[in-house]
Amino acid sequence: MRPWEKYIRQVDPYVPGEQPKLSNMIKLNTNENPYPPASEVQKAMQKVDVPALRMYPDPTSEDLVNALADTYHVNADQVFVGVGSDDVLGMAFLTFFGSSKPILFPDITYSFYDVWAKLYKIPYETPALDENFCIKKEDYYAENGGVVIANPNAPTSICENLDFIEDILQHNQDVVVIVDEAYIDFGGESAISLVEKYENLLVVQTFSKSRSMAGMRIGFAIGNSRLIKALNDVKYAYNSYTMSRLALQTGVASLKDVAYFEETCNKIITTRERVKKKMKDLGFSFPDSKTNFLFATHESVPAKELFLALREQNIFVRYFEKPRIDNYLRITIGTDEEMDCFLNFLESYLA
Amino acid sequence: MRPWEKYIRQVDPYVPGEQPKLSNMIKLNTNENPYPPASEVQKAMQKVDVPALRMYPDPTSEDLVNALADTYHVNADQVFVGVGSDDVLGMAFLTFFGSSKPILFPDITYSFYDVWAKLYKIPYETPALDENFCIKKEDYYAENGGVVIANPNAPTSICENLDFIEDILQHNQDVVVIVDEAYIDFGGESAISLVEKYENLLVVQTFSKSRSMAGMRIGFAIGNSRLIKALNDVKYAYNSYTMSRLALQTGVASLKDVAYFEETCNKIITTRERVKKKMKDLGFSFPDSKTNFLFATHESVPAKELFLALREQNIFVRYFEKPRIDNYLRITIGTDEEMDCFLNFLESYLA
Repeated sequence: MRPWEKYIRQVDPYVPGEQPKLSNMIKLNTNENPYPPASEVQKAMQKVDVPALRMYPDPTSEDLVNALADTYHVNADQVFVGVGSDDVLGMAFLTFFGSSKPILFPDITYSFYDVWAKLYKIPYETPALDENFCIKKEDYYAENGGVVIANPNAPTSICENLDFIEDILQHNQDVVVIVDEAYIDFGGESAISLVEKYENLLVVQTFSKSRSMAGMRIGFAIGNSRLIKALNDVKYAYNSYTMSRLALQTGVASLKDVAYFEETCNKIITTRERVKKKMKDLGFSFPDSKTNFLFATHESVPAKELFLALREQNIFVRYFEKPRIDNYLRITIGTDEEMDCFLNFLESYLA
Repeated sequence: MRPWEKYIRQVDPYVPGEQPKLSNMIKLNTNENPYPPASEVQKAMQKVDVPALRMYPDPTSEDLVNALADTYHVNADQVFVGVGSDDVLGMAFLTFFGSSKPILFPDITYSFYDVWAKLYKIPYETPALDENFCIKKEDYYAENGGVVIANPNAPTSICENLDFIEDILQHNQDVVVIVDEAYIDFGGESAISLVEKYENLLVVQTFSKSRSMAGMRIGFAIGNSRLIKALNDVKYAYNSYTMSRLALQTGVASLKDVAYFEETCNKIITTRERVKKKMKDLGFSFPDSKTNFLFATHESVPAKELFLALREQNIFVRYFEKPRIDNYLRITIGTDEEMDCFLNFLESYLA
């Protein structure tokens, strides 16, 4: 070790879902949408003012903020945008969780929460999901420095209803409660309807799943204007220009075609429900997903074996070698054709 | 104050350079390049695979890393990329400055260094520039936890030669030394040539100035592969997907036309030297800029008065209400036409 290496930050290595560059693969491992972005995005690309790229983007992201405010029927001062929901969530952790009391989030949930908590030296506790991978809401009645709930939760795919979320809010009115709704558009009910009633509620969503824009890195938060102002103050203080001009422009464009958005979400839901039936017949069990993925375990064949067997066929799903979930696969819902390939292989493999 | 507001992070409000949306303005306030990006960028935009935006970008940014490695004649494992040099620098502070000894950077320099140091609880000291706004290299011989030098420095515009940088490196072989070269392409000599010799040297540059791509948010660092690996480990741990597909593609494209790059840099340098002469005649003095801006003070008229008078004419320059530099204007070098408007107004105003 060189002397200058002595103070390098030590991190737990994180391995993102594989992004293999094969042409003939079926990629069901990173919860991407199988359908392209709205056609308005293509049109926006054709109209891009390339010479204007020489100038910084609008640091307030005004056009995208306004488009989101229109879409979700809130005021512009209730909307914050960032470079994917990871950026928005990280900024929210940094902004809101300055208490010396621990923040609370489930033991099995999105894997970056504890990473950001450690980064910003935020104490945290992780109440265990029950044996069916459900959040026990009573665990969130304890005194705390903030609450983070992914709803639907990942990778469990379970969505709680709004009464459940409101119960947690009722018990946590003195701290900021973040509801991470990355997958809400696949059949869940958004807590955005509660932001008027609970000024300590921040709802975070992303363009990466339901809006088919993972490649552009766009996320957003909706909440009381006091929360949003605090987020913007912190953002401007640390990095004023994060959203590129093209992210802002394609983001606005992708919000325009509501019918296409609903159509693709419904297609994914329909495919998901069909795949659920087939997988049950094949001996799989899984929570009742309200997301664009299934979190499935097989009655006899270990998940890791299936993961590797699928991979041999260039069918990529996600496998987490972690306690409690190491016999589960997370399978993104692709097109009907992709899911048929996936199911056909399983059928022959398990026969 | 609401109870949940009690633990909100308090930050020093930062006001980015104005981004007014006037059509008839002359914008010399944020050091943008007056010339458009290389024509390859326009071509790349026409070829964008819009349906592929549904997928996450390549987390390794391989194509852009390879293009930068080719451009700067280094290996791919010596290149790190990020969302503008702010993202790269912030990540470098987080990664390398874990010592309990203070890091060192000048009292007058890029205004985000102390912000990031405070954010990551890095102790720091800021040796004062001399009365001519020059860095005193002896100040960096003291024991420290790391060194950050902007070269050319901002907003002073002064560029030191490589012997000067190497002297600081010679005296700091046990800590990471960051040389922030946002403005190096306007007449300075890059320390990239020293990375083979000093494995603790990280050189940071940006596409926002000399490459006319501020709107895309692309920055990069070049250094020893051990430094780059550490940066990537930290980046993957906290946020795996930051560079959008379009940032990667337009970034690669903008590196292709070397002749155009050199031509636009030379045009800006030529304009700058012409403006220097005129401004001297008008009673201004300034360090001998090797950047795309001048840092100028007038012999009799206060900077703030000039700032406001220019603004009345929709000519925007930057004014910092800070100790030692509150009688200076930072004036971006625009096109010849823009600078003529600027100079003509000054001439009549000061007459």
